[in-house]
Amino acid sequence: MNQALPAGIHTLADHAAHAHQRLDLATLAHIDGGSADEVTLRANAQAWQAIGLMPRVLRDMGAAHTRTELLGRTWEHPIFIAPMAHHCLAHPQGEQATAVAAAALGAGLVLSTQSSTALETVARLVLTDPGRGALWFQLYAQRDRSQTLELVQRAEAAGFEALVLTVDVPVQAPRDRERRAGFRLPTHIHSVNLRKSSSPTGPQAPQGQSALFQQHLGHAPTWHDIGWLRGQTRLPILLKGICHPDDAREARRQGCAAVIVSNHGGRALDSTPPTAHLLPRVADALQGDLPLLVDGGIRRGTDVLKAVALGASAVGVGRPILHALANAGAVGVAHALRVLRDELEIAMALTGCSTLSAAHEVLVHTPTRIASV
Amino acid sequence: MNQALPAGIHTLADHAAHAHQRLDLATLAHIDGGSADEVTLRANAQAWQAIGLMPRVLRDMGAAHTRTELLGRTWEHPIFIAPMAHHCLAHPQGEQATAVAAAALGAGLVLSTQSSTALETVARLVLTDPGRGALWFQLYAQRDRSQTLELVQRAEAAGFEALVLTVDVPVQAPRDRERRAGFRLPTHIHSVNLRKSSSPTGPQAPQGQSALFQQHLGHAPTWHDIGWLRGQTRLPILLKGICHPDDAREARRQGCAAVIVSNHGGRALDSTPPTAHLLPRVADALQGDLPLLVDGGIRRGTDVLKAVALGASAVGVGRPILHALANAGAVGVAHALRVLRDELEIAMALTGCSTLSAAHEVLVHTPTRIASV
Amino acid sequence: MNQALPAGIHTLADHAAHAHQRLDLATLAHIDGGSADEVTLRANAQAWQAIGLMPRVLRDMGAAHTRTELLGRTWEHPIFIAPMAHHCLAHPQGEQATAVAAAALGAGLVLSTQSSTALETVARLVLTDPGRGALWFQLYAQRDRSQTLELVQRAEAAGFEALVLTVDVPVQAPRDRERRAGFRLPTHIHSVNLRKSSSPTGPQAPQGQSALFQQHLGHAPTWHDIGWLRGQTRLPILLKGICHPDDAREARRQGCAAVIVSNHGGRALDSTPPTAHLLPRVADALQGDLPLLVDGGIRRGTDVLKAVALGASAVGVGRPILHALANAGAVGVAHALRVLRDELEIAMALTGCSTLSAAHEVLVHTPTRIASV
Amino acid sequence: MNQALPAGIHTLADHAAHAHQRLDLATLAHIDGGSADEVTLRANAQAWQAIGLMPRVLRDMGAAHTRTELLGRTWEHPIFIAPMAHHCLAHPQGEQATAVAAAALGAGLVLSTQSSTALETVARLVLTDPGRGALWFQLYAQRDRSQTLELVQRAEAAGFEALVLTVDVPVQAPRDRERRAGFRLPTHIHSVNLRKSSSPTGPQAPQGQSALFQQHLGHAPTWHDIGWLRGQTRLPILLKGICHPDDAREARRQGCAAVIVSNHGGRALDSTPPTAHLLPRVADALQGDLPLLVDGGIRRGTDVLKAVALGASAVGVGRPILHALANAGAVGVAHALRVLRDELEIAMALTGCSTLSAAHEVLVHTPTRIASV
Repeated sequence: MNQALPAGIHTLADHAAHAHQRLDLATLAHIDGGSADEVTLRANAQAWQAIGLMPRVLRDMGAAHTRTELLGRTWEHPIFIAPMAHHCLAHPQGEQATAVAAAALGAGLVLSTQSSTALETVARLVLTDPGRGALWFQLYAQRDRSQTLELVQRAEAAGFEALVLTVDVPVQAPRDRERRAGFRLPTHIHSVNLRKSSSPTGPQAPQGQSALFQQHLGHAPTWHDIGWLRGQTRLPILLKGICHPDDAREARRQGCAAVIVSNHGGRALDSTPPTAHLLPRVADALQGDLPLLVDGGIRRGTDVLKAVALGASAVGVGRPILHALANAGAVGVAHALRVLRDELEIAMALTGCSTLSAAHEVLVHTPTRIASV
Repeated sequence: MNQALPAGIHTLADHAAHAHQRLDLATLAHIDGGSADEVTLRANAQAWQAIGLMPRVLRDMGAAHTRTELLGRTWEHPIFIAPMAHHCLAHPQGEQATAVAAAALGAGLVLSTQSSTALETVARLVLTDPGRGALWFQLYAQRDRSQTLELVQRAEAAGFEALVLTVDVPVQAPRDRERRAGFRLPTHIHSVNLRKSSSPTGPQAPQGQSALFQQHLGHAPTWHDIGWLRGQTRLPILLKGICHPDDAREARRQGCAAVIVSNHGGRALDSTPPTAHLLPRVADALQGDLPLLVDGGIRRGTDVLKAVALGASAVGVGRPILHALANAGAVGVAHALRVLRDELEIAMALTGCSTLSAAHEVLVHTPTRIASV
Repeated sequence: MNQALPAGIHTLADHAAHAHQRLDLATLAHIDGGSADEVTLRANAQAWQAIGLMPRVLRDMGAAHTRTELLGRTWEHPIFIAPMAHHCLAHPQGEQATAVAAAALGAGLVLSTQSSTALETVARLVLTDPGRGALWFQLYAQRDRSQTLELVQRAEAAGFEALVLTVDVPVQAPRDRERRAGFRLPTHIHSVNLRKSSSPTGPQAPQGQSALFQQHLGHAPTWHDIGWLRGQTRLPILLKGICHPDDAREARRQGCAAVIVSNHGGRALDSTPPTAHLLPRVADALQGDLPLLVDGGIRRGTDVLKAVALGASAVGVGRPILHALANAGAVGVAHALRVLRDELEIAMALTGCSTLSAAHEVLVHTPTRIASV
Repeated sequence: MNQALPAGIHTLADHAAHAHQRLDLATLAHIDGGSADEVTLRANAQAWQAIGLMPRVLRDMGAAHTRTELLGRTWEHPIFIAPMAHHCLAHPQGEQATAVAAAALGAGLVLSTQSSTALETVARLVLTDPGRGALWFQLYAQRDRSQTLELVQRAEAAGFEALVLTVDVPVQAPRDRERRAGFRLPTHIHSVNLRKSSSPTGPQAPQGQSALFQQHLGHAPTWHDIGWLRGQTRLPILLKGICHPDDAREARRQGCAAVIVSNHGGRALDSTPPTAHLLPRVADALQGDLPLLVDGGIRRGTDVLKAVALGASAVGVGRPILHALANAGAVGVAHALRVLRDELEIAMALTGCSTLSAAHEVLVHTPTRIASV
């Protein structure tokens, strides 16, 4: 696994640029694309970038650290790898390389239901590293509850520590960039955790007039299924894909352990506001009763600090991990995680923010209003 | 009519891009262009795109549907084809192909006075389809009332169910893109519903100092003509081209059946706000007393949902229909309508909006205000 | 003078594009350029374009007209030609061609002190046309009061009806585009109204540490000179280059006849707000006590209507006149003026604005605030 | 030193464009680049440019001047050269050429700790010019206090009049443009004021998990060091890199003589607001108790006037000085300073601002709010 990092890669943007020269266009369209016109995809990254941070000077940073507490575990830093399908698209070692790097850098890992590596294999690689971060399993509710339960039980048995139920794509949104590029999953890559017949995200498009509503969505999970799922497992359940404060409140009412504010990286409903704008609204609604996590458009350590400042306990990164994986396997992923953490530490140093719990003070809240030309 | 859809068309934007390779530049300038600097043309599409939608999760969508009630008829979905002149510019089968596709997809059709196919022919094609949508006739008041009346009587006799009186172009605004491209109507295409001498939109430009005001506009219809027209027909009258709330109130006072908020697709007064901004103001003024319809810049199912959320009972599409028609005749138009409806259903599913009457809840109303750099 | 209009020119923007192919780069830099970074130059045109107009429908426009009253004279329409130096740069017939066209179209003409044609020649051409508009002389205060007085007396004698004293360039702002292009006035073009030794805008730049303030500006006119000038002439005095409401109030106090809100077409202080933003503030300050005129960035009849709606009695056009002059001499200028007036009439028709005094109703004042993505 | 100014340079932007043809890409990346995504770098210049100035007319400017009082000295004008490392990168004569030009133009000079010329040499060149401006020494606290003290004592002895302690980079932010270009300091250029072993900005990046916080920042200066430093020198101490109003208040409490509002030219924390937005907030906090200076993005005399209007007593320029130095050595720097001052005088003349203490009146505070399309 000792693949060398190509020269000239210093940032997550460099990883993206480099990966664009390595991967074929259809795979890139699948990895990088969002839904429809990609308004939300672009807004995600722009919104983090547009938030201002306020430097503070001459503070004592000797005891500073990036630690955070989440679901009964101390995280060395708040960065985790968001669930993404089929890492083998980016690199032959796929989720195995990702897992080794995540564990080595103490980053949390959320393995996708649509992993191209068996969940047990990934768990084994992570759990043997004493410095590892959290290990969670991302769950898509299957049409047949027994199949959902089978996934839950395998994840429990393998040592996953929480279930991340993704709830924002009961139907797949139109992935037009991907469709224009003609992407199809290569025949040697499979969702190995799923039985062949299972179809986690439903048919591509309704065939008749009410195919979507009556045939497909008639089987989609609802809030009632959350109660059922809680009764089937000892693992804490996080809901991923929460945007509306009222849905966050309902998650609290249903006994969920935490909420991940996410718009599926701009791959679900195009027109959804960027998560940087959603997060503080959800934080207002929950008033600290549940931990919040967030993903979507995080590309810099400053973005991580901003997300924490707006209420996130942990911050997920997606596409950049696949880019880094494509560039240098586990070495690439480890490098990307290290860059993010270094940038986070520098951002903390330059804002005089010695712990993440003090991060809310670093945001710029009141711009001076001077009339422009 | 079984023309195949060209490969690689997934969205209305794809239809536009493809049509740009099929049609000649002058025809494209006529179809795609707006007036003057096209500020309103661009604003129309951008305004819909900029409106945020809020996802909701885990709702029961099994009984969801896209039905809407309008002028005593149930529409399977709220999408209609806005009136446009001379479909034969886009395809030899012109309005006949459009009509067949509209009927097949249950979409409303508003046939233009300036149709290149006889209104009776179009009516026959639509009325024979049991799944058809509404069939309306768009009317330009003619300089000679007897000619106007003749059009009304033919439309009634042919089975049209409403009159859509367009009121926003008493004089044609400067269509500069079209003029620069040197567009002229080909000699084989005619406004077959009109007598040769008739000139629905008046002389191109005033010749003397007061040609426009005293010669041309002296004959233009005014509010008094609405009362006269109501007395001539049993059909409900809709006014198309309403922007100002006070004009909407006057339409109500005059007994109009509904109002279509429209800036003529950016082809009338350049500088008019986008219809996405006009619609809620008109809705505020009418307080639900009259149904509202809207067109201008609708390119996605999410746009349709946003328009309904802002108060529209039905939502018109224009240029994309001509693009689709150019690409594959009736098959193209049917595809475009199907795409829009599929996208609408997906948008409803992802916002947890099981009926259109609940759509107002999906809009993003209160952006978080975080100071930017 | 019967030069034909080149094909394909429909708008003032077309005149500009065409002139860019006729004139040499240095002359274009001089005509089109603004000062410094041209922030104000760009803002002028953009600000007019960004203002919304609200269409009104079905109004009786049979008695509509574009007339306006100003300084005791009825103008057929509110468009005038703003003062610009050296029309002979654009066309060999220079101000003579401009004057013939202005008179033929009933447009006001403000001849520059820096005219390349003798003021008496221009006056003769205008005054013989019974349909002519107002004829005013633009005055730069000369360092030597006797030279100023000589200009005033010549203008009076020649039949000019008002003096337009330009007050916004006591020192020339850096015209960097022009300097980079190496523009120099051709040797055959002169400010023929001025004695050779006279230097209306002062030295190009101060030579020593206080050259500007102590040497040059020590001789610049102040408010005291307005009183002196009023005592020397029976002509009404307009101040051109007023931006601040307090300067407009002072002009009223000093007995000026009117105020021209202007930032010198973006050629004076870069960073000055666009005149579209300045005009309503000045109008607020004067409360109708003095007529207001405006120039800067007017390119469309809709711009003219917006300016009138914001308080202007007349609206000046500058660079487009030189472009049209370059393209086709008097025919070009007449065409440009005709286009502007036609567009104005169309804009009035489409906003249902039958007189200019009703124009304030056509502005869009309250945008709907819908949160964006 | 009599190098000629290349033709075609009229503005600081021209100096930049010309320098881009003279310097190699890596050196340019080092000089021009900012940190990370350069959001703050771009915002700095854009924010000044976006501020509006209001022209005033017909005011008596005969006694106008650009003088300002600062730390007991009269400055002929408020422009100073901000501290920058290694001027020898731009020109073989490096800081010597800069110093000669600064003195000749009466501009303040802040010499960097990281000067490529001995501080004593620079001081000698400046102090011999009777028209010179202020001469200050920029100080980076060294890890070993004795080395800091040695620098202070050498600066005092050489005749520097104040110490400018830079506090905004306890750790270097990621200079990604520079890293991508592979910049390395040429072997013939040294920080000659520093002992070889000294490392003013710490290690490039932390090696282990807590290298930054525990190893590096454990030695970084804090507010306690300000008191110590005050006790070691008779020179006034300015803090450079203050953004937060509370840090400005603390500087006042610690007896600092003045505060320089700076984000290190966009080279420290990316996401910091532009200094044009920070300055008025700091000015509000200090209420005139301490003089304020500012740098970052100043490119025009209008920018200088805006900065003074927002509360700055003096205004620093950085990168343009290195560009001008590259273009023509001392002649280039003198030209750039002269251009800025000329532009400042013109801006004062056109805003009728006869002294800098009246500058606050020239800002545009209340934009007219007209709804846009």
